[in-house]
Amino acid sequence: MDNTAATALARVTGHQRRFDARFEAYFDALGQHLAAPGPGRFTPRCLELLRDLSLRGGKRLRVALMYEAARLVTTEDVPGLEEAALSIELLQTHGLVHDDIIDDAPARRGGPSTFYAYRREFPDHGRTALGLAVLAGDLAAFLSQRVLLEAKIPAELRHALLEVQTRAATDTVIGQVMDLERDFHALPDEELLHTVTDYKTTRYSILAPLRMGLLAAGADLTPHDGQLRRYATPVGILGQMRDDYLDLFGDEAVVGKPAGSDIRAGRRSYAVAATLAAATGKERSVVEEALGDPRCPVATVARIRDIARDRGVEDKLRADMRRCAEAASAEAASWRPHWREEAVAFFEHLPFWGTAREL
Amino acid sequence: MDNTAATALARVTGHQRRFDARFEAYFDALGQHLAAPGPGRFTPRCLELLRDLSLRGGKRLRVALMYEAARLVTTEDVPGLEEAALSIELLQTHGLVHDDIIDDAPARRGGPSTFYAYRREFPDHGRTALGLAVLAGDLAAFLSQRVLLEAKIPAELRHALLEVQTRAATDTVIGQVMDLERDFHALPDEELLHTVTDYKTTRYSILAPLRMGLLAAGADLTPHDGQLRRYATPVGILGQMRDDYLDLFGDEAVVGKPAGSDIRAGRRSYAVAATLAAATGKERSVVEEALGDPRCPVATVARIRDIARDRGVEDKLRADMRRCAEAASAEAASWRPHWREEAVAFFEHLPFWGTAREL
Repeated sequence: MDNTAATALARVTGHQRRFDARFEAYFDALGQHLAAPGPGRFTPRCLELLRDLSLRGGKRLRVALMYEAARLVTTEDVPGLEEAALSIELLQTHGLVHDDIIDDAPARRGGPSTFYAYRREFPDHGRTALGLAVLAGDLAAFLSQRVLLEAKIPAELRHALLEVQTRAATDTVIGQVMDLERDFHALPDEELLHTVTDYKTTRYSILAPLRMGLLAAGADLTPHDGQLRRYATPVGILGQMRDDYLDLFGDEAVVGKPAGSDIRAGRRSYAVAATLAAATGKERSVVEEALGDPRCPVATVARIRDIARDRGVEDKLRADMRRCAEAASAEAASWRPHWREEAVAFFEHLPFWGTAREL
Repeated sequence: MDNTAATALARVTGHQRRFDARFEAYFDALGQHLAAPGPGRFTPRCLELLRDLSLRGGKRLRVALMYEAARLVTTEDVPGLEEAALSIELLQTHGLVHDDIIDDAPARRGGPSTFYAYRREFPDHGRTALGLAVLAGDLAAFLSQRVLLEAKIPAELRHALLEVQTRAATDTVIGQVMDLERDFHALPDEELLHTVTDYKTTRYSILAPLRMGLLAAGADLTPHDGQLRRYATPVGILGQMRDDYLDLFGDEAVVGKPAGSDIRAGRRSYAVAATLAAATGKERSVVEEALGDPRCPVATVARIRDIARDRGVEDKLRADMRRCAEAASAEAASWRPHWREEAVAFFEHLPFWGTAREL
């Protein structure tokens, strides 16, 4: 990792630490605020599970993007930025809770998924567990709105932030619907994968944080929309491609989960789709038979990995990721004339940290 | 039904007709607006299912309450009222979609539940069906926010309406969580049932529409909050009690579903809880054994109904409902000095239509 990427990473870590303390304080206040009704224990437990999942938040890249977007304009304290960060991370919590229902996923962020936490608490009441998990996700979605609505900031800014947040939320749902459809394609083309990534990830994880940070800092977005798009699109593809790459080629000890989960779940990820497209004859049959088989053995995953390597898929994905990083970085570099140097440098170097990490 | 209740009903029907046309136009525009990305068919299908469920809307009592609340203040056209009505009905759609997942309910409003519509379309992909239903509900929730955010009304009003909507949405989720907890009580007391009804139903179905209608009409809510509460609380209890009453005592041909569904699902409804409280010895065992047994036979439901009648549960619920209607009606009558007569009369008579209907 070169020094400039290390600097970007250090900034990410600083934002993360400050935000995590703020997020914890938010949940402390929320508990007193919302858990009031009656002598029940289900509502406090629901808030506790949302808190646990939310605070196991990792790098908080969305938050870093938002804070740094504000710093493109100013180093001063920016009212509304904290609420916007809380809002986007609560939206993320909402998405994770419902995603883990959809994927029937037992684990998330190094702990149990909310769905499985409830399943363990209600081993004989599957419907109650499912119901509580659906409702926990719903609650996080509404809290994500509320934190912005209650921000003590000018009405116009609040409205602009809410518009970005709600549009991102809608787009993400549509992206998830498209994602489910994707896996019914025998072989989705790359354009479809890019569209799914854009809706499902890029809009709320990259573009919305950039927009919210700039809005909070008082910038007019209209003249910058093309620039933000040209940065967000390759960064979003890069991020999704990296996840998909690691699922097939990553070191299990580093990634923290068994390789091949996309194959077993039948997900037409970038790596899986590229392998399908490159393989022919008997090799292709091996991949097709393994896809969607939850009991696909480790040896078959290893075989598919070898096929993918032999057919140049690993090299292709690495080259694609590097191209994405270079495109995003070049776009950020072009922001120098009108935005602040230290933040421009952050956006310029961040994508390379993304490609360097864990590869 | 006396003449004044009939007048109230006629007004409800008028609001419903106008609103339904508006709701249909909303979905027409939405389809063109949202279904854009890619050549997919899952997103259009999701919107179609939301549309189908939304337009099978019945009496639209929430909409009537909202429009009449505005008419307490003015007969003029009130900007923001239509968007508020769309928003509250979209929130309702969201709730129904997720409720039917939680309850594993095949039917809703005389058609298939969204969950079961998807299950039928994906008979071999249970997780896809569940996932799409969860996402459809999420989409309705975000659309409910968006329709208000996009309303071309003064910023202050938009913010006030959004605050009411988001608070109601949060309270409803908490109410549903409490509702699931309720059914783990051997015998919940009436205070708990009232609290669940308040959170789960009253706040978004009665109180929020009243508040939104008044806000849109330019009223200051602060001096009226106690009045609205005193009206909404008994109307909410009345509505929930009527549903629970009909589930045990109603005429299947009129109600349109088999009696005893609360017993079979183990729901501690007003009727079930009152029967449990009133029955002793062997009779109580009959009720307890039937509760939560999905295969509880029709004869046992009939037996429980007889027990409930003999122990005075039917009379008690009817008396409770009448008391609720009278309390709400008296509260509305006290609004005469400061609000418009025709709308005051509507609120005065509406609760009796509620008790008269189908009883």
